[in-house]
Amino acid sequence: MGSHLEQLDRLSGLLATVSRDAAGTIGRASVALLDIDPDRARAVLAEVAERAATHRRIDELVPLALVRQQPVASDLRLVLSALRMNTELHRMDALAAHIAKLVLARHPAPVVPPPVRPLIGAMAETTARIADKAALVLVTRDRLDAIQLGLDDDELDVQYERLFTVLTDAWPYGVQAAIDVAMLGRYYERFADHAVNVARRVAYLVGGDMARGVL
Amino acid sequence: MGSHLEQLDRLSGLLATVSRDAAGTIGRASVALLDIDPDRARAVLAEVAERAATHRRIDELVPLALVRQQPVASDLRLVLSALRMNTELHRMDALAAHIAKLVLARHPAPVVPPPVRPLIGAMAETTARIADKAALVLVTRDRLDAIQLGLDDDELDVQYERLFTVLTDAWPYGVQAAIDVAMLGRYYERFADHAVNVARRVAYLVGGDMARGVL
Repeated sequence: MGSHLEQLDRLSGLLATVSRDAAGTIGRASVALLDIDPDRARAVLAEVAERAATHRRIDELVPLALVRQQPVASDLRLVLSALRMNTELHRMDALAAHIAKLVLARHPAPVVPPPVRPLIGAMAETTARIADKAALVLVTRDRLDAIQLGLDDDELDVQYERLFTVLTDAWPYGVQAAIDVAMLGRYYERFADHAVNVARRVAYLVGGDMARGVL
Repeated sequence: MGSHLEQLDRLSGLLATVSRDAAGTIGRASVALLDIDPDRARAVLAEVAERAATHRRIDELVPLALVRQQPVASDLRLVLSALRMNTELHRMDALAAHIAKLVLARHPAPVVPPPVRPLIGAMAETTARIADKAALVLVTRDRLDAIQLGLDDDELDVQYERLFTVLTDAWPYGVQAAIDVAMLGRYYERFADHAVNVARRVAYLVGGDMARGVL
């Protein structure tokens, strides 16, 4: 099964891969949503389903690494963080899949009525940026980047608030569309929140003194 | 810091406590919601905030237990499961808090218009039952109970589906109320899902061969 170091490296490598892929997936889910593209939506569901095997592999590597390496200090933190980052990344995949399923459920109608397309597009863009940065932080372990992600997340929160204002202020598209768009907003908000958590756990690994409880 | 066994026992004991408390909290959040009771809603937020310290304590006990006990086999699975159950239980608290915050945001108006009170009440009841059973399973480790929880969750899914039918079929209460009720439905559905995950992890600890990937 290779050396102990190899196992930790594999764990880090797999996490970097699934986080980069999750960032790609949310981008493609957003394209499927805004282009009303069922083929792309189905492709998103397929890639999420396929990635589940990698999430399982990461979960299986954790006890292996613990038993064989009996890591302490920063290595132990890395291994335990891997388990929790994997949970976050798995949820991110599920949320991207929710967006894709909504596209398929409403097709050929659009999920997003024209006037909120710019705002949903902006939320999609902010979320993709957060996911990209989180994936990058996993590789670079740049603690400052991890902390700055909070600013992007604040931006998304403002967009999310604005979305509810738009939905509840003379909304002419009916209740179903309002609920769909509100849920979309929540999926993006949750997705980004999980990505921020991933980055925070990296910051914790590097610094060990994050204010917010991670690990 | 006590013997190794003591640490594992403390971990199990703390998890049992927070899961039982989380089940109580969702029940109280539902009473606050259906009785339009802001005091109860504030009490829910206070107990959730207070419990955060216990969640942190559990997270801190995990690496301690690993380093001092270097557990293998079922003890290792218990310790790693504790970390992930704790994440689920923490999310359950956040979701109960979302319900309480919605009560406060709309007060003195009700969040739930009269015609959907029975259905939301039923969802609240199913969710509380699922949470109670999950807390019980953590203590009894009865694998059959854990698996049967899936049936309760199926019931909740049916109620959740019905909720969307009610909301999109001649709904006279406006978009804001529809979004609120849809979000409520999602909070209950997510809460229950996390509770089911907790129970499934217990089943995994007992059986070690759950079909669905846990741990």
